[in-house]
Amino acid sequence: MTELEKQGAAAKDAARTLAVLSTKEKNDALLFIKKEIEERKSEWLSANAEDVKEAKAQGMRESLLDRLTLNDKRVNDIVKSIDDVVNLKDPIGVAKKMETLPNGLVVAQKTVPLGVIAIIYEARPNVTVDSAILTLKSGNACILRGGKEAIRSNMAVVRIMRDALKKAGLPEDSVSLVEDTSHETAHELMNLTKYVDVLIPRGGKRLKDSIVENASVPYIMTGEGVCHIYIDKEADLDMGVNILLNAKCQRPSVCNAAECVLVHKDVLEAFLSKAVPVLVKANDVKFRCDEESIKYVKENAEPATEEDWDTEYGDYILAVKTVSGLDEAVDFIYKHGTGHSEAIITKNYFTATEFTNRVDAAAVYVNASTRFTDGGEFGLGAEIGISTQKMHARGPMGLMELTSSKFVVYGTGQVR
Amino acid sequence: MTELEKQGAAAKDAARTLAVLSTKEKNDALLFIKKEIEERKSEWLSANAEDVKEAKAQGMRESLLDRLTLNDKRVNDIVKSIDDVVNLKDPIGVAKKMETLPNGLVVAQKTVPLGVIAIIYEARPNVTVDSAILTLKSGNACILRGGKEAIRSNMAVVRIMRDALKKAGLPEDSVSLVEDTSHETAHELMNLTKYVDVLIPRGGKRLKDSIVENASVPYIMTGEGVCHIYIDKEADLDMGVNILLNAKCQRPSVCNAAECVLVHKDVLEAFLSKAVPVLVKANDVKFRCDEESIKYVKENAEPATEEDWDTEYGDYILAVKTVSGLDEAVDFIYKHGTGHSEAIITKNYFTATEFTNRVDAAAVYVNASTRFTDGGEFGLGAEIGISTQKMHARGPMGLMELTSSKFVVYGTGQVR
Repeated sequence: MTELEKQGAAAKDAARTLAVLSTKEKNDALLFIKKEIEERKSEWLSANAEDVKEAKAQGMRESLLDRLTLNDKRVNDIVKSIDDVVNLKDPIGVAKKMETLPNGLVVAQKTVPLGVIAIIYEARPNVTVDSAILTLKSGNACILRGGKEAIRSNMAVVRIMRDALKKAGLPEDSVSLVEDTSHETAHELMNLTKYVDVLIPRGGKRLKDSIVENASVPYIMTGEGVCHIYIDKEADLDMGVNILLNAKCQRPSVCNAAECVLVHKDVLEAFLSKAVPVLVKANDVKFRCDEESIKYVKENAEPATEEDWDTEYGDYILAVKTVSGLDEAVDFIYKHGTGHSEAIITKNYFTATEFTNRVDAAAVYVNASTRFTDGGEFGLGAEIGISTQKMHARGPMGLMELTSSKFVVYGTGQVR
Repeated sequence: MTELEKQGAAAKDAARTLAVLSTKEKNDALLFIKKEIEERKSEWLSANAEDVKEAKAQGMRESLLDRLTLNDKRVNDIVKSIDDVVNLKDPIGVAKKMETLPNGLVVAQKTVPLGVIAIIYEARPNVTVDSAILTLKSGNACILRGGKEAIRSNMAVVRIMRDALKKAGLPEDSVSLVEDTSHETAHELMNLTKYVDVLIPRGGKRLKDSIVENASVPYIMTGEGVCHIYIDKEADLDMGVNILLNAKCQRPSVCNAAECVLVHKDVLEAFLSKAVPVLVKANDVKFRCDEESIKYVKENAEPATEEDWDTEYGDYILAVKTVSGLDEAVDFIYKHGTGHSEAIITKNYFTATEFTNRVDAAAVYVNASTRFTDGGEFGLGAEIGISTQKMHARGPMGLMELTSSKFVVYGTGQVR
């Protein structure tokens, strides 16, 4: 057995224990984790300081450094989030269906944990705790594989969490970290079909492409978002400007931010003459425009290349594309969208209905910002990612999306 | 583009049309298919006769020949099953959840089709029609890849169905057949991530192993069943005999048939002295016994090897294993079960509860036969397979399991 196989077998074993815990036992364990992190905060922070020092020496860019860095406030927020998860409803043992068959058999379909969840992510140490507590609350074991830049932080906090699990009387292997951050080990994890029930990647396009290419374990793809706002010819243009401003600028780095505005040719000039100055004033937004639209973008404009239509900028950059109507908008989204979040701005009931029916994405909006695609906003309480695939879960994934189900059938001797 | 990529792209395109059809349009298309198969029955039967002739020449064994062979009655049954599917409730457009957020956004989670479903199966021509009509009713396009022994039958009936779709005004590529039955093309289909949303294998262990090893498209594993009946020390032994007889002998070739009986040591002699004569008399059942149990199996007994515990016999053969109690039974099932269907026979409430909580399978039974794990029995109306994996669907899969979902969000200008 390789090291990773041993780790997988240990996680699988722990998962059997976790699957039958009561809600109280799981919540108690979460509170042990909370207490242990609070008490050993300095241990985690000093490990993180070493990661940050090393990353600076390697020339990591500012935005990534910011995601890597922990401080007192951030650790306190993480600790506080454990209370939030304690307060969430236990997703396990919920009857999805229960019926009595004509022969008297009682068939109950109950939620159960998925088992062992592997999570591959980048250099964000908060994801380590977040993933561990959500999988624990849903009765799953987790195998965490974070980015190498955060390895000291992750080793520290996983050690702390495992000590807490031990104090709570639960198997330490409920939570474990892949300490070898080589690509080879990541590939091995993607193919650990004997032990991993589901793999959830939390990261950028490169990670996701690697998983599509290499993984044989079942996975749930999350978060790539090339989102569009379509301004229909019957749009309330001021509402359109306001929604586009929010979708592009409120937090451009996240996956539900808009990357491209599609504008109906009949309102092209009217809309752009309103929207462009607002976006430029707010955040000096740059535009990548098709031939039609560039005529009306008086500032920060560049011609778009084919590549622009498929780019998740994650920045104050917006692609602008003119369309002749709903059909072209829907086709363009089909071709270039990532199935995440898509919006139409229109006053026309029938156009809105057509758009929501024909656009195939995790979330489709009428007259609202794509930024709402989020577990917190949708009332799930917590979120482990936003699925952009169709199997198992689609859209924001909360605790319920970390469950499977089991038919429990109560008989009195029935045979076929 | 390869031939298969072209086929995938055409299916994906057809899926866009299917996704927005009304129930009436889908049902009309099903009735066109029914009519066309009825009218051109002889075309299908004569193609099948050629397959059968060839298979006989190749020395195909009787049970497989039987599955390959069509006749008037079988075709009539298939035609009749189309009416059943017409009568099933449309699974698309069903609200799984709908709520109004505090900011006034109305969030509806609606079912939508998965898209393109690939189905790989063996030499059973009825599966061709069955798969096509279930995917069509659920608004999905399908790419069918049947066994090479049935290729003439499949080409005939797919031609017939495509003609019917054309008459119904729907894209022919809603249903298509992979005519090249080489392993290379099957592998290509397992990796057609750009066009295939979900792959469902309907076949034996070899097909499934090949998919786990080779597939990069998302898949739903179905049907492998090494199912156990555990006779507890507090079992009603006569009920146990009756259930075991049913689970082993009523139809031994199917996946929900029992392969192994676990007997509590305290009732070993009492149970086996009742059960063995019944099973022998009914179907001359052969036994593969551990060291303890073989003492009490007076007929048809052989010592079990390690391999027996993991074998899906699909035949009148039963493995017999003595256990010291519930813990050993649960551990044995964990080690050797396939997560399909598991049963306990007991009068003890607490033992039953422990068993249903701790045994991890698609269906867990108390005092009933494992043979009930079936879409028809569970009231799903139709079944495309029995999932033995945890993601997306677990247990019998009906039309609802062929859907994904979409959040449709209705706003009046909301921003974050």
